[in-house]
Amino acid sequence: MVNLELIRLISRASPSKIVLLVLDGLGGLPKPETGKTELETANTPNLDKLAARSVCGLSEPIGPGITPGSAPGHLALFGYDPIGTNIGRGVLEAVGIDFDLQPKDVAARGNFCTVDQTGLITDRRAGRISTEKCTELCRLLDGLAIENVQIIVQPVREHRLVVILRGDGLSPEVTDSDPQQLGVAPKVITALSLDAEKVASIANQFVARAKAILADHAPANMVLLRGFSQRPCFLTMGEIYKLRPAVIASYPMYRGLARLVGMDVLKTGTSIEDEFETLTQNYSNYDFFFVHVKGTDSAGEDGDFDRKVRVIEQVDRALPKLLDLQPDVMVVTGDHSTPALLKGHSWHPVPVLLCSKWCRPDKVSEFSESACMLGGLGRFPAMQIMPLAMANALKLTKFGA
Amino acid sequence: MVNLELIRLISRASPSKIVLLVLDGLGGLPKPETGKTELETANTPNLDKLAARSVCGLSEPIGPGITPGSAPGHLALFGYDPIGTNIGRGVLEAVGIDFDLQPKDVAARGNFCTVDQTGLITDRRAGRISTEKCTELCRLLDGLAIENVQIIVQPVREHRLVVILRGDGLSPEVTDSDPQQLGVAPKVITALSLDAEKVASIANQFVARAKAILADHAPANMVLLRGFSQRPCFLTMGEIYKLRPAVIASYPMYRGLARLVGMDVLKTGTSIEDEFETLTQNYSNYDFFFVHVKGTDSAGEDGDFDRKVRVIEQVDRALPKLLDLQPDVMVVTGDHSTPALLKGHSWHPVPVLLCSKWCRPDKVSEFSESACMLGGLGRFPAMQIMPLAMANALKLTKFGA
Repeated sequence: MVNLELIRLISRASPSKIVLLVLDGLGGLPKPETGKTELETANTPNLDKLAARSVCGLSEPIGPGITPGSAPGHLALFGYDPIGTNIGRGVLEAVGIDFDLQPKDVAARGNFCTVDQTGLITDRRAGRISTEKCTELCRLLDGLAIENVQIIVQPVREHRLVVILRGDGLSPEVTDSDPQQLGVAPKVITALSLDAEKVASIANQFVARAKAILADHAPANMVLLRGFSQRPCFLTMGEIYKLRPAVIASYPMYRGLARLVGMDVLKTGTSIEDEFETLTQNYSNYDFFFVHVKGTDSAGEDGDFDRKVRVIEQVDRALPKLLDLQPDVMVVTGDHSTPALLKGHSWHPVPVLLCSKWCRPDKVSEFSESACMLGGLGRFPAMQIMPLAMANALKLTKFGA
Repeated sequence: MVNLELIRLISRASPSKIVLLVLDGLGGLPKPETGKTELETANTPNLDKLAARSVCGLSEPIGPGITPGSAPGHLALFGYDPIGTNIGRGVLEAVGIDFDLQPKDVAARGNFCTVDQTGLITDRRAGRISTEKCTELCRLLDGLAIENVQIIVQPVREHRLVVILRGDGLSPEVTDSDPQQLGVAPKVITALSLDAEKVASIANQFVARAKAILADHAPANMVLLRGFSQRPCFLTMGEIYKLRPAVIASYPMYRGLARLVGMDVLKTGTSIEDEFETLTQNYSNYDFFFVHVKGTDSAGEDGDFDRKVRVIEQVDRALPKLLDLQPDVMVVTGDHSTPALLKGHSWHPVPVLLCSKWCRPDKVSEFSESACMLGGLGRFPAMQIMPLAMANALKLTKFGA
């Protein structure tokens, strides 16, 4: 397995640059009619040409058979143990909206939802209200103080919000109020440890106040909370790899996750072209770039095979601009598979290509699941991608005498 | 590596069904005259057709170079750490004959053997006496009591027996009396810890009494004991995977092992066809079936290449009946290799195929060692088979936010 203490010991700063391009949910499953996956269906001349100069493989984000959530999938790509490193959903959402989360804060992910007259949930997402509406409703809930604890309520996107409890002696070890199903009432939040009784009590009071305040705001007439958590403590990528890392992502959660591991967040637009332009403009300021493309995962989640194909083709068309920068190490992969056929994340291993002057290319000449299967990296844990990228950037010194 | 606590956390019950068909000792070595292994020599149209719809690979039961015994080989197939999970041979034999082993019991595997006038072993298996003869001799030894400990002696099959010590304060940490070679005397059993002195003393007294009782029963005129052990404590497959698992095996040890991990034992006949018929009849009552075929291993152990080929062909001919049930996930593999050329278990990785609607098939279109080498699963630890089967049965939820 990857040993970050070892990597920390042998890593060194150098001018060489690494670009990690993540197509979220890249891996797929073959359409029965054609026998080809999304990536195999897409016309990708630039990725194929790159694959021919690369060493390729299939990565397992967490382990065989394990379907990753977004956080563990990305932690593995950054070289962290995705099972041992636990980041709560509340923390992820908070840092993802550039909220300056303090070490003692407890954050929870929230949904505006719809409840009927008897209090039973009829829509967990309140009809996906607009971000503007969400912002307006968050303003109504923001700034309460309960038992000397300040309650900060911030909009995320559509029906999503973050609730932050700020005060002393707060423990995040409480259950969710979100039952993750319809036709039942939101659950009472309960403490999982003695320390957490204060947070449970305050959170329940907050929910009750929110219900009263939102009564006339159907469909967003209630909130659901989940993933109460505090900032985790671990080594940053700067400390482990001696890198100056930056993230380019249009979607808040990925920026937040990258910030937690010590990346600078670069302001960017929403398109792939915007993201690549941001990379170009900031190229001289960093030596590691994590570029995140969300569209592949969204299309996969929606079960839209053809749209996922189109997003991949769009990345392929934009790729030459990125390659013109001639990064010393270029990695293209995903954080997990999201096959359109499954309409969700899956356990299937993910195509990876790693191109560098020193990569020892294999015979793979096409970037696809079936071609990468026979690549020089074989089927391997995603946690190994960072050490391989570091080595190919000549940023790791010899181990042992 | 596979983390059973993680699997336990994300597994869920569902109606989908998994069939794990184990051809014991499946993997082989090529005959020099043909360059083909037993599996490659066998005419297996049904397995080949299945492989074409499957993802394939070569599994390592324990680790590279490690030749598995039957117990660790199967534990790995059930997803348990085959090195960390130690089950004694005595326990295995006891549970394999449906003996109701109690937690405090100490069990040992026994052989009736032949010793000459000077007490040296001339046949470790007493000419493989009949099971009837074994039963008769066990009756002579059963029911002794030594130092307040009850000695239960039960026949297994041919020359094999189980000896159970039942009483208080018994520790199984003692050496074997079976020297596993000819021309020497049975060894004195010695305690490996202070706690175990009582068991060593009782076991040696039992052996002495048995020698006296059996004196006139040549060739079965002595017993050899090995594998003193107590029931291990670990999570069952029901607890880990939320499965209702059942075993179909004609050979007692495999039933016993399966029972230890929580499988129901289904009554079956001795042929492959009997076993598949048992599966069909019980198909609606369980969602996981471990079907064990012994003949491949026995033929390999006997060095009978052609017989092993014939057993594989027999399985292939019977396979359509099993596939007619349309299990959601079908796995065909072995617990280890038993090449006829080596006349014994070996360390060589074992062909695996996993077929499901969601398996992402590879280019393998023949079930063989050389074809599976290039399969989508690569060369991988056998412990990963269960998580993969569970994922393909859609019985694992997402890990992490």
